[in-house]
Amino acid sequence: MLRVVQFGLGPIGQACARLVLQRSDLQLVGALDLHPDRVGRDIGDVLGQDASGVTVRDDASEALAELKPDVVLHTTISFLPAIEEQLMTCIEAGAHVVSSSEELFWPFARDEAFSRRIDEAARARGVAVVGTGVNPGFVMDLLPVVLSGVCASVDRVDVSRSVDAGRRRGPLQKKVGAGLTESEFRAKEEAGGFGHIGMIESARALAAGMGWNDAEFSETFGPHMAMTAHTTEHATVEPGQVAGIHQTAEVRTGGVLRATLTLTMAVGAKDEDRVSIAGDPPMEVVVEGGTFGDTATVAAVVNSVPRVAASRPGLRTMLDLPAAAVSPLA
Amino acid sequence: MLRVVQFGLGPIGQACARLVLQRSDLQLVGALDLHPDRVGRDIGDVLGQDASGVTVRDDASEALAELKPDVVLHTTISFLPAIEEQLMTCIEAGAHVVSSSEELFWPFARDEAFSRRIDEAARARGVAVVGTGVNPGFVMDLLPVVLSGVCASVDRVDVSRSVDAGRRRGPLQKKVGAGLTESEFRAKEEAGGFGHIGMIESARALAAGMGWNDAEFSETFGPHMAMTAHTTEHATVEPGQVAGIHQTAEVRTGGVLRATLTLTMAVGAKDEDRVSIAGDPPMEVVVEGGTFGDTATVAAVVNSVPRVAASRPGLRTMLDLPAAAVSPLA
Repeated sequence: MLRVVQFGLGPIGQACARLVLQRSDLQLVGALDLHPDRVGRDIGDVLGQDASGVTVRDDASEALAELKPDVVLHTTISFLPAIEEQLMTCIEAGAHVVSSSEELFWPFARDEAFSRRIDEAARARGVAVVGTGVNPGFVMDLLPVVLSGVCASVDRVDVSRSVDAGRRRGPLQKKVGAGLTESEFRAKEEAGGFGHIGMIESARALAAGMGWNDAEFSETFGPHMAMTAHTTEHATVEPGQVAGIHQTAEVRTGGVLRATLTLTMAVGAKDEDRVSIAGDPPMEVVVEGGTFGDTATVAAVVNSVPRVAASRPGLRTMLDLPAAAVSPLA
Repeated sequence: MLRVVQFGLGPIGQACARLVLQRSDLQLVGALDLHPDRVGRDIGDVLGQDASGVTVRDDASEALAELKPDVVLHTTISFLPAIEEQLMTCIEAGAHVVSSSEELFWPFARDEAFSRRIDEAARARGVAVVGTGVNPGFVMDLLPVVLSGVCASVDRVDVSRSVDAGRRRGPLQKKVGAGLTESEFRAKEEAGGFGHIGMIESARALAAGMGWNDAEFSETFGPHMAMTAHTTEHATVEPGQVAGIHQTAEVRTGGVLRATLTLTMAVGAKDEDRVSIAGDPPMEVVVEGGTFGDTATVAAVVNSVPRVAASRPGLRTMLDLPAAAVSPLA
C-alpha cells in the first residue's frame, strides 16, 4: 500500500484524489491546496463524497514532513518556473513525484538547468520525478514510440489527435475559442490567451524516442473555422466563426520532415487519434473515438504511481518507466 | 556501439543479423549456428550479401568467451527445456540476452524453477535476459498493457489478431494447415503438428500487467474453415477445406471473463489487429492492415538490444523494459 498526498485540488487534482480513494493499492494520506475555500476541510467533503479523515492543508513543507508519503501527485501549474519550489519541497520530504505539469513531461530542452537541478536533487534523495498525462504523455509521444518498437526502420511519423470540444466540459470550449470571430481569436492568441500546452514537449520526446538526436522543431497555431453551425450545451458556433484550435508541430532531421503532430480541438471535430508510421513494417494505428482526455489524464497520473515508486531515482520520463510495475518472481 | 552475437541462423536469426549489420549503433561481432552448411562461412555470405569478416561458429561457449559480446540475440528454439543450456552459456559469458523464444517471453508459470535459475544466474553475472517478438511480445500483451495506462479502470480486454496467411511466406501457410481437410487438420493437431506458440504466455503477461493476480486461463484451438476458394502462390484452398487456424485464450478472475485473445491465421483472413478495452475511458484501437509479423518480430528483437543492455539484471520482461533507451541529461 503506497501512501499518497494529492498536491493541488483543481479539477484534475480532485479527480486524481477521487481515483486514489478508489484504489486498493493506494492510500490517500494528505491533500494540499492554497484555495481558502478548501483549506481546513475534509477532502471527502471537497470531493462531494463521504468524509475520509484527510484534511486539506496549505503548509506543503510541514505537511509532507509529517505525513511522509511515498508519492506526491502534483497537479498545480503547467509551467516549470512556477513548480520548481513545489517539486523541491516534495523531493526534500523524500517523496516520489508524479506530475500533470505539461512542461515537466519533457523539460530538458526548455530548461536544462532546471532539469539538472531537479534530477540532482531527486537522485540525492533517492526519489523519482516524472511528468505524465494523455497529451503530452501518451497519444503523441509514448504511443508512437511503443509502436515503433516493432519497426525495423522508421522514415516518418504522423500523429493526429482530433477532439470534439462540443462533447467536453464547458471550460474546454472556452479554452479553444469556440464561437469567437477570427479576429477575436487572433487578439486572444496575441495576448497569450490560449493554445494547447505541451505540443513541443511531445515532439521532443518523440524525436528522442526515435533516436533523432539532431532534430529541429517548429510549431504552428491557428483557428479551426466552423463550416457548419454547431450548438452544444455550452456554446453556439455559427459558420465562419471559430470552432476551435488547430495546432501542429513538425520535426526535421537534416532538413527532412520526419514527424508531424497535429492537434485539432474544436466543436464538431471527429473524436479520433491516429498514428501513422512510414517504415518497415509500416504501422497505421487508430484510436477509434479518441482517447478521452479528462479521464485518461487522471488515469495516466494515478497509474504511474506504482511504476514511479519502483523507478530509478532522478528526473525520469514516460519513455523510461516500465509499461507496468510487475515482478513475476517476487 | 554495442557488440552483438547472433545465436541461431534460421530465417528469423538471419533477418536479425541482417538488421544488426544495418544499424550504426550495433556491431555484429559473431554468429553461432549448428547447421554444417553454415558453420565456417562468413555471415555475409550466408546472408547473400558482402563478406563481413564474421565467421559462423558452432562452439558457443568458446566463441562467446573470446568475443565478449555485450548482447546475444538468441533465435533458436521456442521451448524452455531446449534453451536453458544455451541461455546459461550466454549468461556465463557475461552477455545480456534478447531471445525470440516464445516461451521465454513469460516463462514464470510454465516453469517457475527454470525462471528462478535463469534469474539468479543473470543477477549474479549482472546481465539481463528477455524474450520478445510481435506475438507474444507486442500485439496481445505489451500493446494492451500500454493502452490501459490511460484507463482509470479496466473491466475487460479483448484482443484479436487476424493474419491473411495467403499474403505471407509459404511455410506459414503450411504451418496453419491451409488446404487440409478438417480430419487431416485434427489428425495433425493430435500429433502436436501445429498451433501458434505463445498464446498462453501473452494471456499471462496481460493478466499480470492488469494486476489480475488470481487469474485463471483457458485455451481453445481449431481449424478456420474456408467459405470461398482462395488461391495463393503457395496453396489452393477450396470451400470446406481448412483455411488456417483459429486459436483463443481466455482469462477469468473469480469466474468472470476479463480478457479474450483471439488469433486467426488463415488464407483469405483480414489483416488486422484490434484491442478493445471496456473501461473508463474505453479504448478501441485498431492496427489497420495488422502488424506485419515477419519484419516486426525481427525489429522487436533488435530494437530491444539497447534497452536490455540498460536494464536491471535478471530475467526481465517486455512489461518492465523502458519504451526507449533515452537519457536526455546524459
